[in-house]
Amino acid sequence: MAFIVKKNIHDKEYYYLNENKRVDGKVRTKTLAYLGKTKKGAEKKAKEIKSGKKDNKMKSEAKAKEKKEEKAIKVGSKIDEITSISSKRGFFFQTANIYGGKAGFFTYGHLGKTLKSNWEELWRKNIVGLDENFYEIQSNSILPEAVFKASGHIENFNDPMTECKKCHFRFRADQFLEDNKIENAESLSIEQMTAVIKEKNLKCPKCKGELSEVRQFNMMFPIHVGFNEEKAYLSPETAQAAYLAFKEEFSATRGKLPLGLAIIDKAYRNEISPRQMFFRLREFSQAELQIFFDKDKINEHPKWNQVQKNKLRIKFSTSKEIQEISCSELNTQHKIPKFYLYYASKVQDFYLKILNVPKDKFRFRELNEIERAFYNKIHFDVEIMLDTLGGFKEVAGVHYRTDHDLSGHSKVSGKNLEVFYDGKKILPHVLELSFGVDRNIWTLLDIFYSVGKEGSMFLFPPALSPITAAVFPIIKGRKFEKISEKVANDLKKEHCILYDKTGSIGRRYARNDEIGTPFCITIDEDSVKKKDVTIRERNTGKQIRVKIEDLEIIMKKLINSEIKFGKAGKPFNF
Amino acid sequence: MAFIVKKNIHDKEYYYLNENKRVDGKVRTKTLAYLGKTKKGAEKKAKEIKSGKKDNKMKSEAKAKEKKEEKAIKVGSKIDEITSISSKRGFFFQTANIYGGKAGFFTYGHLGKTLKSNWEELWRKNIVGLDENFYEIQSNSILPEAVFKASGHIENFNDPMTECKKCHFRFRADQFLEDNKIENAESLSIEQMTAVIKEKNLKCPKCKGELSEVRQFNMMFPIHVGFNEEKAYLSPETAQAAYLAFKEEFSATRGKLPLGLAIIDKAYRNEISPRQMFFRLREFSQAELQIFFDKDKINEHPKWNQVQKNKLRIKFSTSKEIQEISCSELNTQHKIPKFYLYYASKVQDFYLKILNVPKDKFRFRELNEIERAFYNKIHFDVEIMLDTLGGFKEVAGVHYRTDHDLSGHSKVSGKNLEVFYDGKKILPHVLELSFGVDRNIWTLLDIFYSVGKEGSMFLFPPALSPITAAVFPIIKGRKFEKISEKVANDLKKEHCILYDKTGSIGRRYARNDEIGTPFCITIDEDSVKKKDVTIRERNTGKQIRVKIEDLEIIMKKLINSEIKFGKAGKPFNF
Repeated sequence: MAFIVKKNIHDKEYYYLNENKRVDGKVRTKTLAYLGKTKKGAEKKAKEIKSGKKDNKMKSEAKAKEKKEEKAIKVGSKIDEITSISSKRGFFFQTANIYGGKAGFFTYGHLGKTLKSNWEELWRKNIVGLDENFYEIQSNSILPEAVFKASGHIENFNDPMTECKKCHFRFRADQFLEDNKIENAESLSIEQMTAVIKEKNLKCPKCKGELSEVRQFNMMFPIHVGFNEEKAYLSPETAQAAYLAFKEEFSATRGKLPLGLAIIDKAYRNEISPRQMFFRLREFSQAELQIFFDKDKINEHPKWNQVQKNKLRIKFSTSKEIQEISCSELNTQHKIPKFYLYYASKVQDFYLKILNVPKDKFRFRELNEIERAFYNKIHFDVEIMLDTLGGFKEVAGVHYRTDHDLSGHSKVSGKNLEVFYDGKKILPHVLELSFGVDRNIWTLLDIFYSVGKEGSMFLFPPALSPITAAVFPIIKGRKFEKISEKVANDLKKEHCILYDKTGSIGRRYARNDEIGTPFCITIDEDSVKKKDVTIRERNTGKQIRVKIEDLEIIMKKLINSEIKFGKAGKPFNF
Repeated sequence: MAFIVKKNIHDKEYYYLNENKRVDGKVRTKTLAYLGKTKKGAEKKAKEIKSGKKDNKMKSEAKAKEKKEEKAIKVGSKIDEITSISSKRGFFFQTANIYGGKAGFFTYGHLGKTLKSNWEELWRKNIVGLDENFYEIQSNSILPEAVFKASGHIENFNDPMTECKKCHFRFRADQFLEDNKIENAESLSIEQMTAVIKEKNLKCPKCKGELSEVRQFNMMFPIHVGFNEEKAYLSPETAQAAYLAFKEEFSATRGKLPLGLAIIDKAYRNEISPRQMFFRLREFSQAELQIFFDKDKINEHPKWNQVQKNKLRIKFSTSKEIQEISCSELNTQHKIPKFYLYYASKVQDFYLKILNVPKDKFRFRELNEIERAFYNKIHFDVEIMLDTLGGFKEVAGVHYRTDHDLSGHSKVSGKNLEVFYDGKKILPHVLELSFGVDRNIWTLLDIFYSVGKEGSMFLFPPALSPITAAVFPIIKGRKFEKISEKVANDLKKEHCILYDKTGSIGRRYARNDEIGTPFCITIDEDSVKKKDVTIRERNTGKQIRVKIEDLEIIMKKLINSEIKFGKAGKPFNF
């Protein structure tokens, strides 16, 4: 029998339709549907669903439709919940809210900024750290027009746009067609889109006016520099700045290949319809590593042995399934070069082993020739399954860009960008590991969000969590505060510590669970006598007792997952 | 007797006129003048100087002029040397050099980026770390037009410009007037500048055409967002984004004052004549901390006792001298509030104790009412004496901005930005600690550059140096390399380590001195037997011997200056 349940999450009410079923002799509760945020609406919806359930003749089509709608509502609810906690606790909020904000612009609050910095630090360590000859540099977002002539962005970096002839409202043509149930509108040419608009007699969504022909709209932001207004652009990717720096850095790092140049910086795209949270922003952060290498060595890598047996989770463009195939098979059967596979494998490790993304939520998706940029010879996107966005979404990519960029810059600038290496003159090829930082941050919020009996929490791995540990004196009084402050200050040298002496202990735990703090350290009566403290683990609520003098070393091991929590101290029951 | 000396610095020749003098019974060499980069030019110049020196009737005016020129040449030479090393070794170079570059845009190479990151890390620790309730956030560079209406930037953020009526060349009027020997042109109104141009009959420097009236040129870069081209700007400071986030962050951090919001991000100014290296860039990094506080508490700070006896080095706007005055005297005699002085004192500590800037190169300079922004009630710039730029230059500022910004945003947005605190509703006032990151990086390159017998080096403090330690096997052979790699990899977990096994040991030392590596660790025959290594200190060339098992702890102490080098191990002579 189905029944309505109300959940309170962050001062908001959410209604669900649940049902108890006996499975293997035990009573299990299953959520049948999300019913919205008001009691009245929930009752109405529950009634509809229940009557629908009784009607055994309901067509499978209608059922599927309802299922789809339910899923959309669930997705909406998870986005709402995450967004609500995020703005309440300081992960992120829309920029310039007091002026009504603007789509595609977000601000990271203090917790979001730390989460982002932690992600970036792990990226530096695990991606830039892959080779001694990989380095991070920093350049400009404003780059001269010639750069984007050479890169092809001026000619090709466009979205299709149409305009109302009456009210002059402009909007994106392919999305408009998809909203009007034209399938795969994205793959139509602008002429085809214009034809469809005429054929279906589609009108302006605002005023029903007639629509203009579809034309290309360049997505870069133009900038005019100096009194004499030389044309430049805000860079839509960090990659170009790395290509521009290649010759200087090749020489400054003593002329070795492969050479890696990494940049973490803002990128800018004049998106017409920013949507899907952090997935189509107008100002966003990219973390990109450009690996310059000798194309004659594309089928070798000195550390190939490390990865050849690793299985990559891959969805080929010709297949609907995710397959798990070893690097060595991908090399021999699918002709993907070893140099490419080595880095693809390390990117997969980064997601599965460092960021702790569940394996079944991860895949490489091969882009077919129409989807991928014309200069990318091999192109797999890294995609993560996100509940909030209802499917696998691109968060990174491994792109073999050939010598497209260096030869383009060579041509347009008239400067020879070849280098002398290994006894010959070569124009290096480029393998790009490109990561959307904000998309990765959204991914963390999505996959680690969890609702339990006592409220919600983010199950971040300790190295990612904005607060590594919270320190509380559990009893009021100066002597307890004194020890607590000392413990907090000692740990602060290496970690991000929150010190909190107010509120009930339960509330302090809940506040920290909510923002994903993996460990809470409490100081009590015994701490004064025995010089020890209690550590509580977020994921299990279990507690252990540890000597203050050992705390620094134990915390370090816990954060790096070098010991299990249960073995880090004496079990403790409050 | 004066003689010509040639110095080879980074494959370039520099000529100097030196003289030996007996001082306190010892012969000392003194450099009289820099003579340029060619032998011929140097001989000519030396002759001129020598004949000039003999002529005792040379007027003091002419002497002063020559001295000024000499100084300019010396300055030029130091800039040349630093710029040459920087581009050769990867500190910085002009962006898009292959396209001829563009004034005001620089790229940090791998060493420069690390130097900058290290500076930022020290800033976070020592400036953002000043209070538990100070946090870093991250926001957008593109902000809506209304923001800059409220802040006053649209009306006031201008430079005076004139244009040639014939060739339409545009340039900055005040600098043009100063180049034409009009003193204090910067303080003239645009009407006065127009008058001077007419009066002196000044013409276009390019084509001698007639010049237009001087008018205001807004220094922000405008941006048009979306299909419908809503107006926005690239932010010329990070501060505005912090004001926009104030209400959300005040609530997310549980409503306490003072609240500090820090942002490290790019800022953009359409400078007409970018010059002075990193001091007038068009795209640059700012590190700014906005401290929101209750104005009724401006003359108190809970940690006032810590600073009251500290002496600040101050040049008042009414005085020509730098004075050293204690905070407590500044408070009682000069009526500067305690809240302001506490942070000014901590900023001075940051420069003198953390960045190791020599005391006599540091000062606070008070800006008078004409110089400072109209909304700054108290405004001292932090200035550092830079040889390369020939004087004290602004690198940071401590600004009491009152409630100018929050009340401006309140007015324009129509949203009440008051908060409830301490039993009352208040609109917080703001104390801003603002740092130009690139200017600070240039400052480090300038003040730590040093030329010794064996070439140049940067005497960076260990915590700032891009490479913390270099590790070399001194003897060829796999067993030495193996130990060296292990030592390097163990240290890499916490530090930036360079591993180098090629070239003579002397060249390896010199290469590392040149980029400022404070310690070189060598592995030799004894390292295999006795499991120890040699550490060499950059500043003195002295060496000590240390057990490999103790290396991690000793390195940590050396980097944090917790032990003296001589006491960190057994003295060692190679």
